[in-house]
Amino acid sequence: MDRRLFLRSGITFSLATLAAGKVSTLLADEQKPVDPASPPWMHKPGEPFSIYGNPSRYEDDVVRFPSANSVVPGNGVSWTPLHKLEGMIVPNGLHFERHHNGVPIIDPEQHRLLVHGLVNRPLFFTIKDLLRYPQVSRICFVECGGNSNAGWNKAPIRSEAGYFHGLVSCSEWTGIPLDTILNEAGIKPGAKWIIAEGADAFAMNISIPLELAREEGMLALYQNGERLRPENGYPLRLLLPGLEGVLNVKWLRRLKLTERPIMARNETSRYSELLPSGKARMFTFYIEAKSLITSPSANMLLPEPGLYQITGLAWSGKGRISKVEVSADGGKSWADAELQEPVLPKAFTRFRIPWQWDGKPAILKSRAVDETGYVQPERRELVEKRGTNGFFHYNAIVTWKVDEDGVVTHIYDEKDIAETTDEISIDTGWD
Amino acid sequence: MDRRLFLRSGITFSLATLAAGKVSTLLADEQKPVDPASPPWMHKPGEPFSIYGNPSRYEDDVVRFPSANSVVPGNGVSWTPLHKLEGMIVPNGLHFERHHNGVPIIDPEQHRLLVHGLVNRPLFFTIKDLLRYPQVSRICFVECGGNSNAGWNKAPIRSEAGYFHGLVSCSEWTGIPLDTILNEAGIKPGAKWIIAEGADAFAMNISIPLELAREEGMLALYQNGERLRPENGYPLRLLLPGLEGVLNVKWLRRLKLTERPIMARNETSRYSELLPSGKARMFTFYIEAKSLITSPSANMLLPEPGLYQITGLAWSGKGRISKVEVSADGGKSWADAELQEPVLPKAFTRFRIPWQWDGKPAILKSRAVDETGYVQPERRELVEKRGTNGFFHYNAIVTWKVDEDGVVTHIYDEKDIAETTDEISIDTGWD
Repeated sequence: MDRRLFLRSGITFSLATLAAGKVSTLLADEQKPVDPASPPWMHKPGEPFSIYGNPSRYEDDVVRFPSANSVVPGNGVSWTPLHKLEGMIVPNGLHFERHHNGVPIIDPEQHRLLVHGLVNRPLFFTIKDLLRYPQVSRICFVECGGNSNAGWNKAPIRSEAGYFHGLVSCSEWTGIPLDTILNEAGIKPGAKWIIAEGADAFAMNISIPLELAREEGMLALYQNGERLRPENGYPLRLLLPGLEGVLNVKWLRRLKLTERPIMARNETSRYSELLPSGKARMFTFYIEAKSLITSPSANMLLPEPGLYQITGLAWSGKGRISKVEVSADGGKSWADAELQEPVLPKAFTRFRIPWQWDGKPAILKSRAVDETGYVQPERRELVEKRGTNGFFHYNAIVTWKVDEDGVVTHIYDEKDIAETTDEISIDTGWD
Repeated sequence: MDRRLFLRSGITFSLATLAAGKVSTLLADEQKPVDPASPPWMHKPGEPFSIYGNPSRYEDDVVRFPSANSVVPGNGVSWTPLHKLEGMIVPNGLHFERHHNGVPIIDPEQHRLLVHGLVNRPLFFTIKDLLRYPQVSRICFVECGGNSNAGWNKAPIRSEAGYFHGLVSCSEWTGIPLDTILNEAGIKPGAKWIIAEGADAFAMNISIPLELAREEGMLALYQNGERLRPENGYPLRLLLPGLEGVLNVKWLRRLKLTERPIMARNETSRYSELLPSGKARMFTFYIEAKSLITSPSANMLLPEPGLYQITGLAWSGKGRISKVEVSADGGKSWADAELQEPVLPKAFTRFRIPWQWDGKPAILKSRAVDETGYVQPERRELVEKRGTNGFFHYNAIVTWKVDEDGVVTHIYDEKDIAETTDEISIDTGWD
C-alpha cells in the first residue's frame, strides 16, 4: 500500500471502466423478477400526498440503536447510524439521544425559563416570549462526552461505526444568543458559573463557566428548520457549540448564575475521568478534533477489488477542520482527503478520497487536524496519557481492517489480530 | 415609517426592555395551571428511546398543505409551511411535493437507470452500482416553476406564506455528479439535449439542454443525510441546482441523449407561459431571484406595538444572494437585512432585521438582489412584462400589510385595500 495509490485525478475514467464491467456482470448474474423497462409501480397511481413524510419502507434498517440502562427507566443513549448516512446534516429523526430519565413530553404553553442567581433582575420567560427575540442560525455538531467510549475497552468492539461513534450528530440550530438574555438580566460582579437545569424527571443539571457559555451559547428553539424534537429538548435547549453534549442541557428550565460550580452528580462522579495517577480530570468541556471513516467501515463487505470512495466525518470543538489525512496501509503513508465545502467551524466536515483496493489486506485510518493545529492522536498515545478508566472523551484514530475477502473489522493498531468484543459498557457506564 | 426605524445596533438593550415588560404582563394576566417550579413532567420518568423520532405532538400544525387535483389521482402539490420554519434547511418530512400520478413505492433492488441515445455505450445501472461512485454534497433549493402562482390572481390570495410560496424547499443533497456518468457512457457529437424520465405511473419526462445539465447536475441519492424520501424521488432523482423543479426528475429511470427536445406535455402545454403578445415563453429553466418575509406574514397577529424581528428567505437559481432589502413603508424606504452565514449559491439565504412597530398600519416588503445584479421586481413590473396568464415563474416582491390591530394580510401594492380571494387555481392549474 503506497501513497500513490490514492489517485486524486483521473478518477472518472477509472471508475467508468470499473462500473461498466460491474454492471454487465450484475445484469448477467442476477435474477430480474421485474421487467426494468416496465416495472409494476408504473402501472398504477402511486401513494397520495402526505402532510408529514417518512423514509421509504426499504430503509427501515436506517435507525438509531438504543442502549438503555436496565435499572433506571429512560437512562441511556441511542446511537446515530453514521455508517448509513452521507453529507453533514443528520436528519432530526436520527439525531443521537442521551437521557437520564426519559423524554419529558412538555406542553410549551406551560414551560418556563427562569434566569436568576447573581443577576440584577431575575427573569421568567414563556416560550412565546422567547420567540419574539432576535434569532440566529448555526450549523454545528453536538457530541456526548461519552461517545466512542468502547474505544477504552481492552479489545476492539465489533459494532458498526455509528453504533460505536454515533453519539454525535450535526444539525442547523436556530435560537437566541444566550448573551442577549444574560445581558437583559444583568450579570452581577462575581458571577463565574452558570448552572443549567432541565425539566426532565432527573432534573439534569450541570455547571458551565460563564465566559465559555457567553462566547457562542444559544437558547435553541429550532433544529433543521422545524421546532426541536422532544428527544432533543423540546421546547428549549441550551446549545454550546464545541462543548461536550451534557452541557447542552435539554428541556432547559433554569439558568442560575453563581460564584462556584454546583458540583452536580454529572460533573463529579460522571463526566469526569479517572487518570492513571489516580486523580480525575474534571470540567473537560471542549470536544477535541476527531474523525472517522464511515465507509468502508466495520461489518461492511467490499464485493471485489477495485476503486472505492473512502468517506467519513471529521469535527472539532475548537474550530474548523483544516485537514483530514487517510491511510490505507495502517499509518505508514497518508494522503489528504478532499473536504466537502462549506467547511464550517464546530460542524461535521465530510471528507472523501478515492481508493484502489488491490484485494490484499489493508488497514484504513483517518486523522483529523483542526485549525488550532491539534492532531487527532493514535489510540496508544491517548491511552498512554489518559489510561483506560476515563470512559469519556475518547477521540483516538479509528482503524478498520479490510481482509482479503473484503470483510471490514475494527482493530487496534497495536496488534493486527485482536480479540474482539461486543461489550458496550452500557449497564455500568450510562447512568 | 422611516429608514432610521430599522435599528441595526442597540437591539439587545431595546429588546431587553421590551421583554422584561412583556414577561411581567404575561405572568400577571395568565392563568398558571401548572406550578412552573415543579411541572408534572418532572414527576415521572419520560418516554423511552426511539429508533426514529417524530416532532412533538404540540407541533402537529406544522405540516405540508396538500392541494390535489380532483380528477387525476395523485396529481397536485403539497406546500411547505415556510411561515412556521426557521433557518435554511427544510426537514425532509416537510419538503414540498409535486407529483403527476402519486408517489411510486419503488423497490431499490429492482430499480434501474438506463443511459442511452446519442452515447457511445448505453449503460444500465442498479442503485448498488451507483452507490459505488464518488459522491459530492450540495446544499441547494428546489423550486417548482409553478410556485407562488396565485400571485397572478386578480386579487391577493389569503393563504399563509408557505401555502402560497412553499413549493420551494432547501436541503443538503448528496449524489454523483451527472457528468461522471455521462462521460462514462461517452457523449456522441450532435447530442444537445437530455430527456429525463421518471418511474412513476405518469412516466414524467422532460428535456434539458445537455450543457446546462452537465454544469452542476447530480444523480441524488441522499437528502439531509439519509436516503431520499419516497416523495422526493427514492431511490434516485435528478438534481439540477437553480433550474425549475420539474426538470429535477424524481424516481429517475432513464436519461436519453438527443439532438432535439422531446416536446413533452410538461414542456409544451404546461411549464410554458402565455405572454400578452399571444406567444408563449418555453424552456424557462432558471429560477430568478426571489424573497419572502416569513414572519410576520399573512394571518399572523402582532400582539402589541414594539420591537419585532422581521425574518424571511431569499434564493436565486443564478447564484448567491448578495443583498436583501426590507421596507416597512410600502417601498418608500429600504434597509439592508442581515444575511445568515453561510450564504451559499442556489441555496436558501435566511435574512433578518429588527423592526420597531409603532402600532400604526405598516406595509412590509422584501427585495432580493443576486450576484448577477438581478433585482426582484415589483408585481406591477412583472405583470407589465409577462401578463397574468403565465401561471409559472412568479417571483415578484411580496407585500404584507400590518393593520392597527396587528393583523397581517397579503396585499398587492397597487391598491392597499384589495379584494382578497382564497382561490388556489389547483383544479385548473395543477395537471
